[in-house]
Amino acid sequence: MRILVQKFGGTSVANLECMKKVREKVLAARAKGFKVVVVLSAMSGETNRLLGLAKEWSNSPDPAEIDVLVSTGEQVSVALFSMLMKDAGVNTRSLLGYQVPVSTDCAHGNARILGINQEKLQELLEKHDVLAVAGFQGCTDESRVTTLGRGGSDTSAVAFAAALGCQCEIYTDVDGVYTTDPNIVSNARKMDRVSYDEMLEMASMGAKVLQIRSVEFAKKYKVPVLVRSTFSDAPGTLVTQEDSRMEAVLVSGIAYDKDQARVTLRDVPDVPGIASSLFGPLAEGGVVVDMIVQNPSRDNKTDMTFTVPRGDLDKTLELMAKIQKETNAAEVLHDLHVCKVSAIGVGMRNHSGVAAQAFDALRRENINILMISTSEIKITCLIEEKYTELAVRTLHDAFGLGKE
Amino acid sequence: MRILVQKFGGTSVANLECMKKVREKVLAARAKGFKVVVVLSAMSGETNRLLGLAKEWSNSPDPAEIDVLVSTGEQVSVALFSMLMKDAGVNTRSLLGYQVPVSTDCAHGNARILGINQEKLQELLEKHDVLAVAGFQGCTDESRVTTLGRGGSDTSAVAFAAALGCQCEIYTDVDGVYTTDPNIVSNARKMDRVSYDEMLEMASMGAKVLQIRSVEFAKKYKVPVLVRSTFSDAPGTLVTQEDSRMEAVLVSGIAYDKDQARVTLRDVPDVPGIASSLFGPLAEGGVVVDMIVQNPSRDNKTDMTFTVPRGDLDKTLELMAKIQKETNAAEVLHDLHVCKVSAIGVGMRNHSGVAAQAFDALRRENINILMISTSEIKITCLIEEKYTELAVRTLHDAFGLGKE
Repeated sequence: MRILVQKFGGTSVANLECMKKVREKVLAARAKGFKVVVVLSAMSGETNRLLGLAKEWSNSPDPAEIDVLVSTGEQVSVALFSMLMKDAGVNTRSLLGYQVPVSTDCAHGNARILGINQEKLQELLEKHDVLAVAGFQGCTDESRVTTLGRGGSDTSAVAFAAALGCQCEIYTDVDGVYTTDPNIVSNARKMDRVSYDEMLEMASMGAKVLQIRSVEFAKKYKVPVLVRSTFSDAPGTLVTQEDSRMEAVLVSGIAYDKDQARVTLRDVPDVPGIASSLFGPLAEGGVVVDMIVQNPSRDNKTDMTFTVPRGDLDKTLELMAKIQKETNAAEVLHDLHVCKVSAIGVGMRNHSGVAAQAFDALRRENINILMISTSEIKITCLIEEKYTELAVRTLHDAFGLGKE
Repeated sequence: MRILVQKFGGTSVANLECMKKVREKVLAARAKGFKVVVVLSAMSGETNRLLGLAKEWSNSPDPAEIDVLVSTGEQVSVALFSMLMKDAGVNTRSLLGYQVPVSTDCAHGNARILGINQEKLQELLEKHDVLAVAGFQGCTDESRVTTLGRGGSDTSAVAFAAALGCQCEIYTDVDGVYTTDPNIVSNARKMDRVSYDEMLEMASMGAKVLQIRSVEFAKKYKVPVLVRSTFSDAPGTLVTQEDSRMEAVLVSGIAYDKDQARVTLRDVPDVPGIASSLFGPLAEGGVVVDMIVQNPSRDNKTDMTFTVPRGDLDKTLELMAKIQKETNAAEVLHDLHVCKVSAIGVGMRNHSGVAAQAFDALRRENINILMISTSEIKITCLIEEKYTELAVRTLHDAFGLGKE
């Protein structure tokens, strides 16, 4: 039995017309002889509508009940899609999280998949040619409804592919993963292949093609993920294991993230434990700190600078006001007009000088670098927000990523 | 442990304001020391919205998938209501059909309850003070979603009360069962008690207070059902076993049903088997035939007259056209402007002359009776539709049912 997992997001199932396009994709896979597991999201807007109800009903809605509520979105999608497939004469049935089951832990709203009943799936695929699976949802040991967090349908799809040992196609409203944002760089190039690690770095930079956790899952279980467009027949981008072709390229893509704010605690006494007294409370407050720079000490005082998502700035400044008093720091500064720009590529592992090349390119355009952080396969610069587009184009050109 | 089942329909959970009224009712029961099983319908309009989607998606949507689709309505209600109860500090959780489970047969869209896991319910009631149960839904042996048909939430509520051996309160937008439609007869009286059989006859006449199947269920398991209003504190009507008080009254209520069409097959040869060759195809076609009259034979020919719901008239006439040819009958007549009026009362069992009294009352107002059918506790007359209100008032007066 040849099996294929195909996943379609909210915009792909937004209405009847869209769902008919989805059906074409599934019928095409059927024509190639595949049994198809179709993982669907809620119709676009539906999850937000339901969350809106929860907010209207309660200031602090029970997370377990939010899951009961929002999981209806995917349930509606799979029921409607199954009707549509049956109309085309295809033996189809819908499948909800608890019916597989997709076992998860009890972290309502952000549950992790513990296992998928593969035997049951195989059995159902003997009986049906297409299974329309509600993405995003699972259930606990006690058969309570859980959801996997925003974008969790990607994770569902990869988990099903892992359980079935097959390839996973993720359909979305773009036709693949690009070397950078085509809205900024007109000659951005669609990549044929990209490694799990590069995809993870891009996703962490806010590239919305795939949800981070789904890529982690794909990497862990070595599931090849093909990212394609619901609305075209373009071949898409294969997210897969690193290979020599990828390594031959220094930089694969340029990503950027404007959802950044920079915070500086000035003239804080440079004593042991200062970093933890600063970042401990932020972590407890649920603020994800990204780049961190500690200036060299002068007169036993130092400056600590870090970035947080803009939405967390108010909470961060509240916490920092307390910390400033406790640590006797001079002042707290912040800046909303910053942006992260990154060059990403597994090729960096084996080549030196990539960072220097990036800095040099930015310098030639007089773009001042405010902070730098590097990882094995990524170089990130924090710059003034107004230079974002220029910086992205500059780096994209510098590493020769555009179409010929 | 004292347990109470309370059921609230679609208009009672239509929005946040309504649901807060529902919460008051549940809190009042809690204050009396009850653990409460709250059975909820979908928010009013929601089931129709979902069925509208199904119709848009397919001309003949898969009944199994319709159940997956529409059962989300109740799921949304119980999730939102649980949030609201938790906000009031009450230990509440939602409960879906498959989580109990409410076991049903596989008749999607019109499933029958086979059993409710009482042990699991008791266990959950040890842990929680309120269970918010999704009405209308159950699941098959293979854990597929089923629904119990329109108004099935009433049946769910009675089934839960039967499983728990407790009383059942059905909250609706009227404050009880009336001797007749108060919109027609201004001095219609709310009954304190009504027997299961009387309630069944009234429900079959289209009185929308309780769904027929729920009353059958209540009768079978001797569950006392109290019909009350969500929006007032009036004491309501208790639907219960017959007692001497009920039997002392000749007629308990007057019901009417305008959703009727009369069909006549004229001059059909009066041979053995003619009735079955006529009503067999109608039954196969899913048409529920109600009153049937066969005229005395003349020249070996007879007229067959019967009533069907108006919505089934077109289908009926199609079938009758065929049957007319097959049986060589003279013609098929039909009339949409008819109405059934009934006098109902368990007291009839032990009293004669009730029918004569009804006919006489109608005659005095010059209302022509087109057809008559009687049962042990009901006398039904088919009349011209335009006399409906007059006939109802006349019978209501004739049997002294009004307020003093």
